[in-house]
Amino acid sequence: MPQHPPAEPGMREDEVDTPALILDLDAFEANLDAMAAFLAPTGAKLRAHAKTHKSAVIALQQMRRGAVGQCVQKVAEAEALAWGGVPDILVSNEVASPRKLARLLALSRIADIAVCADGEEGIAMAEQAAEAAGQRLRVLVEISVSGNRCGVSPGPEAVALAQRIAASPHLIFGGLQAYHGSAQHQRTPEQRATTIAQTVEDTRRTVEQLRQQGLECGIVGGGGTGTFRHEATSGVYTEIQAGSYAFMDADYAANEDAPPFRHALFVLSQVMSTARAGFAVLDAGHKAVPTDSGFPKPWQRPGLDYTGASDEHGQLAVRDGAAPKLGEKLRLVPGHCDPTVDRYDWYVGVRGGRVECLWPVSARGGMQ
Amino acid sequence: MPQHPPAEPGMREDEVDTPALILDLDAFEANLDAMAAFLAPTGAKLRAHAKTHKSAVIALQQMRRGAVGQCVQKVAEAEALAWGGVPDILVSNEVASPRKLARLLALSRIADIAVCADGEEGIAMAEQAAEAAGQRLRVLVEISVSGNRCGVSPGPEAVALAQRIAASPHLIFGGLQAYHGSAQHQRTPEQRATTIAQTVEDTRRTVEQLRQQGLECGIVGGGGTGTFRHEATSGVYTEIQAGSYAFMDADYAANEDAPPFRHALFVLSQVMSTARAGFAVLDAGHKAVPTDSGFPKPWQRPGLDYTGASDEHGQLAVRDGAAPKLGEKLRLVPGHCDPTVDRYDWYVGVRGGRVECLWPVSARGGMQ
Repeated sequence: MPQHPPAEPGMREDEVDTPALILDLDAFEANLDAMAAFLAPTGAKLRAHAKTHKSAVIALQQMRRGAVGQCVQKVAEAEALAWGGVPDILVSNEVASPRKLARLLALSRIADIAVCADGEEGIAMAEQAAEAAGQRLRVLVEISVSGNRCGVSPGPEAVALAQRIAASPHLIFGGLQAYHGSAQHQRTPEQRATTIAQTVEDTRRTVEQLRQQGLECGIVGGGGTGTFRHEATSGVYTEIQAGSYAFMDADYAANEDAPPFRHALFVLSQVMSTARAGFAVLDAGHKAVPTDSGFPKPWQRPGLDYTGASDEHGQLAVRDGAAPKLGEKLRLVPGHCDPTVDRYDWYVGVRGGRVECLWPVSARGGMQ
Repeated sequence: MPQHPPAEPGMREDEVDTPALILDLDAFEANLDAMAAFLAPTGAKLRAHAKTHKSAVIALQQMRRGAVGQCVQKVAEAEALAWGGVPDILVSNEVASPRKLARLLALSRIADIAVCADGEEGIAMAEQAAEAAGQRLRVLVEISVSGNRCGVSPGPEAVALAQRIAASPHLIFGGLQAYHGSAQHQRTPEQRATTIAQTVEDTRRTVEQLRQQGLECGIVGGGGTGTFRHEATSGVYTEIQAGSYAFMDADYAANEDAPPFRHALFVLSQVMSTARAGFAVLDAGHKAVPTDSGFPKPWQRPGLDYTGASDEHGQLAVRDGAAPKLGEKLRLVPGHCDPTVDRYDWYVGVRGGRVECLWPVSARGGMQ
């Protein structure tokens, strides 16, 4: 069953039950505005990635600032968004299940839906599902620009798949998906610029070869919070798929020339043991703040370091004079915002030290 | 909102939607029976740790085989169990929040509830909450046997806290909590034997000093899946707090002299991309199978290795001749069962290749 909300509007932040997912609304809105302002002169549009926020409420705020729609990775995420009023959703991922494709096609009666493919077999599966549903489904070809996940090679192989889609009676060729995941956290701006220059070149070449075959790309999508400045100004990408920009996290903040966004997402935690000097224990371990991209950082609390996580305990090393009190609550900046959000049923929106709103994480756990 | 069940009873396992949490019922029941058989002659009782399974259904099956109750780490877990009919629950952890203590006291009207403390301030907080509720609360002293988490030092400091509890009008001294977490995954049996010998000695000494002060320990609790054989046969521990034994995971299986349990818990995943030779991509990344204790292992599929996880993708290295098909489903043995279970709303119980039952993960996300 879903967990009950850890707060009510009007409460002080230190009254919020812990662990809780705190959204600093001033910082969050500033991040949304900053991305909209950056993209406006580039011609590229935002299709924000909802695998980060998992929230129809947040998706609609991004769209009110000019985003054309949302990306998701999973069919269950597409459902949560469409049911929450999001009108345009790209599954930026392959779907190799007839049952899941049938769910997407059902959804396409209430929202614009597109999905990716990277092989002939997947395209045949999509055609069969669309035919069975009596509908047409938009399909993008995913090209492998980083070489370590899904995607067909850029160039002729991608063109052959696009032709296959265009020749399928119940499919519509939608364009290219060209996201470079590992570049997002390359630490130096030079590394990222070099990597994405190659990605842009591979993508540009493929777009041109498609055009020579009479196939126009409605969408050329990619780019994340670490690299979007390159894709957006490339003249090749039409859509940017950043997600973390709305929240930031410790891993993105560790990039040199870190993206110009503020920390807006926190896990509020409570000190539950001060039994030993130089040490304290928080009620937020790796179930509350996943550590796949490193430990969280205590926020604006010099002298405290989060040095270890077990399931339900966070270990704090305490320097002289910085000891927290038993029961004290403190904010942590998550190492990685995406899996952290997915641990919670509720955002607690805070402004000026008070709880302003509660928003459901409506696609929480939506992995299918 | 909770995710809908990925299966229905009667389905074949390969019809289950993915990712899904699969419980092999034969292996699971064998594990429960094996633990009951091991403990029967020792005199120590099982108080299984529900932070692993998060399920009242599973808790009651453990109790039908002789477990005296359940451990939890969080108040929300205690609520989910008590509401599901579990009559005896120990919060094997400190609770430093007046609101959470009030919730525990409310719960103590429908179940036997106990909680731990490791300092005078926490004891005062519990006394105040119990007085306000007009009830008595059982409190154990947690002693620090591993030195890296909560707990007061064994010996006189622990005795002083026990006396403080016994002197509090609304508290009842319940005994000692003495769990050594990091010993569970020490790889050699010699390391574990040496470590727990010291733990047992520290605990025995404290029990004896308490007795000299007229304080009897109703509960002396600790021990996990890696070490329970030592605590159970020590003559000092009355209760064993193993949780993972019911499921096993890859991390426990990596112990030399691994505990005598079968793998019963799996994540069923689907191959979503086969675009590149020697490589495949699964629909289960670290959101579906947390990697805090290492990558999951493909089950009974020689030639496949899970070599990398991003949010929603699992990377499979494929040796010659072992290539999986697009859309194929395969089981993964999680690196760490506890956080994996907590990612799902449903257990899919399977026997003989068919879905036999669905059980809710009723304390899923219960972190508060």
